[in-house]
Amino acid sequence: MSAYEKLLKRVKQIACLNEISEFLMWDLEVGMPVGAEEARADQSAVVSELAHNLLTDPKLAELLYDSDKELMREAADPSYDGDANPYSLQNRGVKGHLLRRVRRMVDQNTKVPAEVASELTAACSKAQSVWMRARKNNDFEAFRPALERVVELCRKKAEAIGYKEHIYDALLDIYEPGLTVSEVSRVFGELRVKLVDLVKRIAKAEKPNLRLIKQEYPVSIQRQMCHRLMTDMGYDWTRGRLDDVIHPFCCSFSTRDVRVTNKFQANVVTAAMFTALHETGHALYEQGSPAEWTHTPLEGGTSMAVHESESRLWENIIGRSRAFWEHYFPVFKSYFPAQTLGADLDEFYAAINYVTPSFIRTEADEVTYSLHVMLRFELEKALIEGSLEVKDLPEAWNQAMRDYLGIVPETDTQGCLQDVHWPSGLFGYFPAYALGNLIGAQTFEAMKRDLGDTDEILRHGRLGEIRQWLHDHIYVWGQRLYPAELLREVAGQSLSAEPFVNYLEEKYSRLYKL
Amino acid sequence: MSAYEKLLKRVKQIACLNEISEFLMWDLEVGMPVGAEEARADQSAVVSELAHNLLTDPKLAELLYDSDKELMREAADPSYDGDANPYSLQNRGVKGHLLRRVRRMVDQNTKVPAEVASELTAACSKAQSVWMRARKNNDFEAFRPALERVVELCRKKAEAIGYKEHIYDALLDIYEPGLTVSEVSRVFGELRVKLVDLVKRIAKAEKPNLRLIKQEYPVSIQRQMCHRLMTDMGYDWTRGRLDDVIHPFCCSFSTRDVRVTNKFQANVVTAAMFTALHETGHALYEQGSPAEWTHTPLEGGTSMAVHESESRLWENIIGRSRAFWEHYFPVFKSYFPAQTLGADLDEFYAAINYVTPSFIRTEADEVTYSLHVMLRFELEKALIEGSLEVKDLPEAWNQAMRDYLGIVPETDTQGCLQDVHWPSGLFGYFPAYALGNLIGAQTFEAMKRDLGDTDEILRHGRLGEIRQWLHDHIYVWGQRLYPAELLREVAGQSLSAEPFVNYLEEKYSRLYKL
Repeated sequence: MSAYEKLLKRVKQIACLNEISEFLMWDLEVGMPVGAEEARADQSAVVSELAHNLLTDPKLAELLYDSDKELMREAADPSYDGDANPYSLQNRGVKGHLLRRVRRMVDQNTKVPAEVASELTAACSKAQSVWMRARKNNDFEAFRPALERVVELCRKKAEAIGYKEHIYDALLDIYEPGLTVSEVSRVFGELRVKLVDLVKRIAKAEKPNLRLIKQEYPVSIQRQMCHRLMTDMGYDWTRGRLDDVIHPFCCSFSTRDVRVTNKFQANVVTAAMFTALHETGHALYEQGSPAEWTHTPLEGGTSMAVHESESRLWENIIGRSRAFWEHYFPVFKSYFPAQTLGADLDEFYAAINYVTPSFIRTEADEVTYSLHVMLRFELEKALIEGSLEVKDLPEAWNQAMRDYLGIVPETDTQGCLQDVHWPSGLFGYFPAYALGNLIGAQTFEAMKRDLGDTDEILRHGRLGEIRQWLHDHIYVWGQRLYPAELLREVAGQSLSAEPFVNYLEEKYSRLYKL
Repeated sequence: MSAYEKLLKRVKQIACLNEISEFLMWDLEVGMPVGAEEARADQSAVVSELAHNLLTDPKLAELLYDSDKELMREAADPSYDGDANPYSLQNRGVKGHLLRRVRRMVDQNTKVPAEVASELTAACSKAQSVWMRARKNNDFEAFRPALERVVELCRKKAEAIGYKEHIYDALLDIYEPGLTVSEVSRVFGELRVKLVDLVKRIAKAEKPNLRLIKQEYPVSIQRQMCHRLMTDMGYDWTRGRLDDVIHPFCCSFSTRDVRVTNKFQANVVTAAMFTALHETGHALYEQGSPAEWTHTPLEGGTSMAVHESESRLWENIIGRSRAFWEHYFPVFKSYFPAQTLGADLDEFYAAINYVTPSFIRTEADEVTYSLHVMLRFELEKALIEGSLEVKDLPEAWNQAMRDYLGIVPETDTQGCLQDVHWPSGLFGYFPAYALGNLIGAQTFEAMKRDLGDTDEILRHGRLGEIRQWLHDHIYVWGQRLYPAELLREVAGQSLSAEPFVNYLEEKYSRLYKL
C-alpha cells in the first residue's frame, strides 16, 4: 500500500467514527428511551475519544508527510495526468484536495492541548445545564460564572490554534476555513445599514392579513404536503428518511444516509413546510456529494455558511417567492380545502412574508433574521477579544437590540439567554447563519444568469431544474473547494452583501409598496 | 488507578463498541434507508475492528494478570469482606466474577488466529449470499462448496480454541460456557424418545378447530393488544421501545436500552402476540440486570440457552397456558369483538396449542420444535467431527426428519437450506433453542415451589408476581453465574429433560385427551 492508501484507510476509520457519533445523536433526538441517557453518553464519549486518538496519532501526521512527498513525485512524472502543482484547484485529481482537508483536521485536533480541550468539554457540559435552569428562571447572574469559564477556555483554544490578525479569526476558521473578522465586518457593516433602514420602512407600511396561517391544519395532511415538497425537490428517499422531533434538524451518517427531521403542529402550518424546505436544502447538498468520496473529508458541505446558504436559498429565496406558490398554492388548497376556502395567492404570499422585529432569532423573518445574527457576532467577538466582560453582556445585548431592531426584551430569557451556542462553546459559529443568506443570494444571481427566468421555472413547479443546477455547481464539489474558492467558482465573486440586499429591497418594496 | 480500575475502563470501552455494533444492526433492520447499506457495512466493520483490537491488545491481558494478583492480595487482608477465595461463587464481591468473564472474552478472541477469523468472516459473507440464492432456487449443489469452506474453517476455529473430549465442545462453549457434547447428548437422547412418542400419540387424536385464529384481525388493534401484554409483563418503556420489522428480535445497547421488535399481519393474529411474549421475555431478562454493571461483561443474559429459557417460558409455559388465557381471553375479546363473537376459551386454547409435524423450525409448535433443533444438533456435530460430509447433508436431513417427525420435505429449501445459521458459521448455536425449553421448565418447577399455585396467579393476570420471581432468581444474576451454576442456584439441579417432558405430557394429555 502507498502512504496515501494507508492514510486513506485511517481517514475512513475516523470518518466512520464521526458518522457514528452523529448517528448516536440522531437516535437520541428521534427515539431513544429516556432511561438510556447515561449509557448513551458513555457510548458517545468512547467513540469521540477513539476518533480523537486516531486523529492525533503521530502515525497519521507521518503518513500525511509521506503522502505529500508521494504526490509531489507523482506530479513530477512525465506521464502525470494533471497540473504541475498537484494542489492546484485546476487539477483534475483530488488527492491534493483531500490531503489539504486531512491536514486541516489534524491541525485542528493537535494544536489545542488535550487539557484545554477536556477542560472546555467539561466547562460546556456544566454551562449547558446551568444555562437551562438560568433561562427558565430568567437568572443571568446564575449563568455568568459558567459562561465566563467557557469564554476563558475558548480564548485559550483560539490562542492555541493561532491567528494572524484577530484572536476571533482562529474560532471563525473552525467553521469557515479562511474567513476573518475583517471580511465579516466588511460585509456585515454594509448589510446592517441597509437592513435597519428596510425594517424601519416596512414597519410604517400596512400589515398583511395573517388569518390564513393562523388556522388549524391537520398534522397528518401537513406531513403529506411536506413529503410532497421534499420529493419534488429531489430528496432521495433511498438514502434518507423523515422523523418527528422537538427541534428539527438534518444530519448525515455519510452522504449515503442523510436524514431529515421535522415538527408538525396543527396551529402553525407554515413552520413544518418551511422547515421541510430548509432541512431538505441541507439534505440535497449532502446527498449530492459524489459516492466515491464516502467516508473521506471531501464529502458533504464545505462550511457551515455554505450549508446554510443551501438551506436558506430553498427556504426563502425559492420557498417564499410568489412564483413558487403560483404552483404550490393550488396544491396547498387541494390538501386543505376547508381552511383555504376563498383564499387567494396574494393573501397567502403576504402572510408567509410578514416582516416584524421580534426577540427570538429562530422565529425571525427573512429580513430581520440577519440582524439577530450580526448582533451576536459583535457581542461574541467583543467577549473573545476582551473588550466586553460577561457581566456586561445583558446590557450590551439590549442596547444592540434597540440599535438594530428598535425593540428591547423585558427579560434575559428573551434576550441573551435564548441560544444554546454560547454555553456549548460554539463561539465563531453564529456568523454562518447570516453569511448563508448572502451566499444564497449570490448563488441565486449566478443561477439566474445560467437558467434565465427562474420565476418561469418555479411557476411551473420544475424544482428539478433548480436542484440540478445547484447539484452541478455546488453539491458536486463536496468539501473539495474552500468556501471562498467555491464562491469564486460558482458566482465569480468574493463574499458580498449586495445581491442579498438587492433581493430583499426588490421583493419587499413590491410586497409592502414601499 | 488500580489495575482493576484500569481494566474496567478498557472493558467498558469494548462494551460500548459492542453495544454500538448492536445498535447499527438494529437500525439496519428497523429503519435504515436501503441506499445506505454499503456505508453502514463500513461503519460496522470499523467498530468491530476497534473492539477486536482492544480485546487482543496485550496490555489488556497484562491488566488482567495484575488485577488477579491485586484481588488475591485484597482477599489475604484480614479486613477483607468476603470469601477467602475471591473467585468463589459464595463471595459477596463481584470482582472475581467479572475477571472470570473478561478472561473468557480475551481467550475467545486471542486463541483463534487472526487469519482464521478473517477467512471465516469472508467465507460466511460469501456463503450467506450464495445461500440466499440457493434457497430461492432449491439448489443445494450451488451452496455446497461455500458450506464446505465454512465447515472447514469452523473446525480450524474449534481446534484453535481447544477442547477436552469432543471438537464440537469448543464451539458449544462459545454460546454455552462449560457445556459439552456428552451432556447435550444425555438430555437430548431422553427428550427425543419422549417427544417422538408424544407427537405420534397426538397425531392420532382429534384436531382442534382453528377457525378462530384463521380470521383477519386489524393490525392497529393487534399492536394495542401487544402493547398491553408487554406493559403487563413489566416491560420498562423508559428503557425500551417497540418497532416493526420483517423478522422480529430483541436487542440491547446495554441493559439501559433494550428494544423489542415485532411484525403485525392481519391474517395471523397469534404470531404477533406470541412474538410479543417471546421477545419481551428476552427483554425483561436484559432490563433486570443491576444498573451498576452497565458496560461490563456481567450485564445481560448468561448464555443463549438461558436467554431462550426466559423467552420460551413467557411465550409457551406461561403464554400458552389455559390459566393465562382465563384472564386474557376476555381482554382479547374486548379488542376484537367481531372476530370472537360467540367464541369460548376452550376453542381458543386448543387452537393456539395445535400440534402437528411441519417442515419449518421457526413455525413449529411447542412439542415438535425441540425435535427440529435436535436434528440440527446431530447433523452439525457430525459435520464438525467429520462423520458426515456436506455432500451427504440433504439425505441425512431427510432421513432424520423421517425418524424424528415422520415427514420428509420435498425440497431442500424446506429442508436443510432453511436456516441462516450454517452459512453464518454459527455452529454450536442450535442446541440453545431446545435447551431453553428444558431450562424454562426446570425454572418453572422451582417457581411453583416458591409461589404455590401459579395457575391461580395467572388466572388473575398477576404477571408482576411472575416477573418479580424471575427477576429475583435469574435476572439479577446477569452474567455473574455460568449457566450450570445458575441452574443449580435457581432449581437446585443440573440440566434435565424431565421437567419439560412432564410439563408437555401433562398439558397435552389433557388437551388432546390422550
